[in-house]
Amino acid sequence: MSVTAARGFSAAGIKAGGGPDLALVVNSGPLTTAAGVFTSNRVKAAPVVWCERVIANGALSAVVLNSGGANACTGPDGLEDVRATAEKAAGVLDGHDAADVAVLSTGLIGVRLPMDRVLTGVEKAAADLSADGGETAAIAIRTTDSVHKTAVAEGDGWIVGGMAKGAGMLAPGLATMLVVITTDAHVDGENLGRALRAATRTTFDRVDSDGCMSTNDTVLLLASGASGVEPAYEGFAAAVQSVCEDLARQLVADAEGASKDIRIDIVHAASEDDAVEVGRSIARNNLLKCALHGEDPNWGRVLAAIGTTSAAFEPDRLNVAVNGVWVCRGGSIGEDRDTVDMRGREVVFTADLAAGDDAATIWTNDLTAAYVHENSAYSS
Amino acid sequence: MSVTAARGFSAAGIKAGGGPDLALVVNSGPLTTAAGVFTSNRVKAAPVVWCERVIANGALSAVVLNSGGANACTGPDGLEDVRATAEKAAGVLDGHDAADVAVLSTGLIGVRLPMDRVLTGVEKAAADLSADGGETAAIAIRTTDSVHKTAVAEGDGWIVGGMAKGAGMLAPGLATMLVVITTDAHVDGENLGRALRAATRTTFDRVDSDGCMSTNDTVLLLASGASGVEPAYEGFAAAVQSVCEDLARQLVADAEGASKDIRIDIVHAASEDDAVEVGRSIARNNLLKCALHGEDPNWGRVLAAIGTTSAAFEPDRLNVAVNGVWVCRGGSIGEDRDTVDMRGREVVFTADLAAGDDAATIWTNDLTAAYVHENSAYSS
Repeated sequence: MSVTAARGFSAAGIKAGGGPDLALVVNSGPLTTAAGVFTSNRVKAAPVVWCERVIANGALSAVVLNSGGANACTGPDGLEDVRATAEKAAGVLDGHDAADVAVLSTGLIGVRLPMDRVLTGVEKAAADLSADGGETAAIAIRTTDSVHKTAVAEGDGWIVGGMAKGAGMLAPGLATMLVVITTDAHVDGENLGRALRAATRTTFDRVDSDGCMSTNDTVLLLASGASGVEPAYEGFAAAVQSVCEDLARQLVADAEGASKDIRIDIVHAASEDDAVEVGRSIARNNLLKCALHGEDPNWGRVLAAIGTTSAAFEPDRLNVAVNGVWVCRGGSIGEDRDTVDMRGREVVFTADLAAGDDAATIWTNDLTAAYVHENSAYSS
Repeated sequence: MSVTAARGFSAAGIKAGGGPDLALVVNSGPLTTAAGVFTSNRVKAAPVVWCERVIANGALSAVVLNSGGANACTGPDGLEDVRATAEKAAGVLDGHDAADVAVLSTGLIGVRLPMDRVLTGVEKAAADLSADGGETAAIAIRTTDSVHKTAVAEGDGWIVGGMAKGAGMLAPGLATMLVVITTDAHVDGENLGRALRAATRTTFDRVDSDGCMSTNDTVLLLASGASGVEPAYEGFAAAVQSVCEDLARQLVADAEGASKDIRIDIVHAASEDDAVEVGRSIARNNLLKCALHGEDPNWGRVLAAIGTTSAAFEPDRLNVAVNGVWVCRGGSIGEDRDTVDMRGREVVFTADLAAGDDAATIWTNDLTAAYVHENSAYSS
């Protein structure tokens, strides 16, 4: 049900170019409250610059998404293309203002969008809007995604639904992805933003598939208030968290060329920041990622990765488990590495820093020849 | 001629296990001055811990190197193995003290060395020592290296020679590698250390093949003074720099699975640190490294990588050239990317930060299916 699971929303996904590549999500209210989280890359795509601007007033009435190009590094012309897209959407939708229309783009960097197709596509999508269009919208925003990704969490009389695209370039400060989450709960702007930031911090921000940070990452949360129910903050935040967790896990499972989903639990860290720094360092170690592809529980590479961080730890107190077998104890050889079973798709590393009580979990993938192929055989 | 190009040195490379895997370099003086630079990884292999200790007095009379295991993450037992190796070498060499014997190891982390073979190997190598053994020593320290690596620079009556091993895990704070450089120049400890640090800072430290930092990196510079010539510092430092540059370039050319050698020139940076940070960020971008393998001049990925740094720059003033074609100007689309010829093995990226007058060069490689295979098919 995706973004149309919540009442007050309609959506469509259509072909503007060769395949499904343009989606539209419309909030018909009564509320148009919205919050957003964006890439922390200093090189921001034009649609991100636009979105940060239009969301400043805490309101969005519609979202246009395209998967045929990132519209990044396209200069002032690229920003004008975004404005034209938003104005087109406002024009074909009754009573909408371009300043309340978000635009999200994904695809190749450094290429202008074919604006004639985009603008015709917006018209077509507006004509196709329906209260069960969430699925087609989720399909239209795919690039190298092998499946479309949606999630739903239900409250007492209200609902949170979402869609995501993302299969590569997943890294901190958001995985490369476009995410739109909707709710019919009655939530004010402050609580909407608070719930979204809390959820992204421990879900999308902790997926690090290939260490590469995108110029286009965007997560939007839109509230229509159509249920008429004003939930308690905790319950609402938990539902947003649940949808973000679900979508983030789907991103990991669909990472380009990956054959393993790798969960890295850092425990007994001196701080949460230390735990995240160590988790990311492990997640980004290409040698380890290759070893995991080969189902080799190469804990030495884990220690080498930990050793490059500034986290608090003593090398001779580090412990590392792979799928529950403590192959490294006290910074040295532990249980027999041949007893580790790594045949399943999911592999769990536990790194015990023996330095405190904090913890964090980072998700990543293995590095495979298929990843290399997918990212070298054509421009992406 | 490798490490025996300089007078006063003898060397040997022998089979302690299945193939050439143990080398010995002996300095017969009259000087035994030495300097070293070691991995900045906080998880240091036992031989690094040993070397840092024995080089503290500025003297080394012999170096044992083995390529059958890193002796890293092996606890106190591993350090005792290093001590036993140094003591064995001191015992079989006349008039040597274990406290002046360095031990360098490379290979799999987290496995004890087969000490019976190592000790027998040291005996065998001592019996094989010769004034032209530098070549066999360079061969014996190879792991996944496809070729052995040596370099020589000649001064006026004196010489600097060196050997290196390294083919993967090449990253800052030294590439993963063992390097021994010798000279028959008469140089005091202070100038030896100064010349070595100056040279490694802009050569080995700026090779970043796969972003992974080793536990074992070591570069040693030994002076015998056997030429009787005391060169001016500048000339000597230039010779050391030349040998380090030569060996570092050979490491890049032999990186595991690589099909491209990539030179990243950062120019007009606000500081050298900024230039190095930006260069490393580009060098470590897996998506870009895949694109380069596919001969795709994907400058958008360069900008995305620059955007993750803290360097001084304005996104709309960035310029990027690939092999001399300025495909990105002012942060946007520049010259036609189809005019870039990337067929050669060497590819040069130039990133102009338009923020100052500093510059730096980082070397890296492309990311290939062969790299994945080499690092996933077996433990390494």
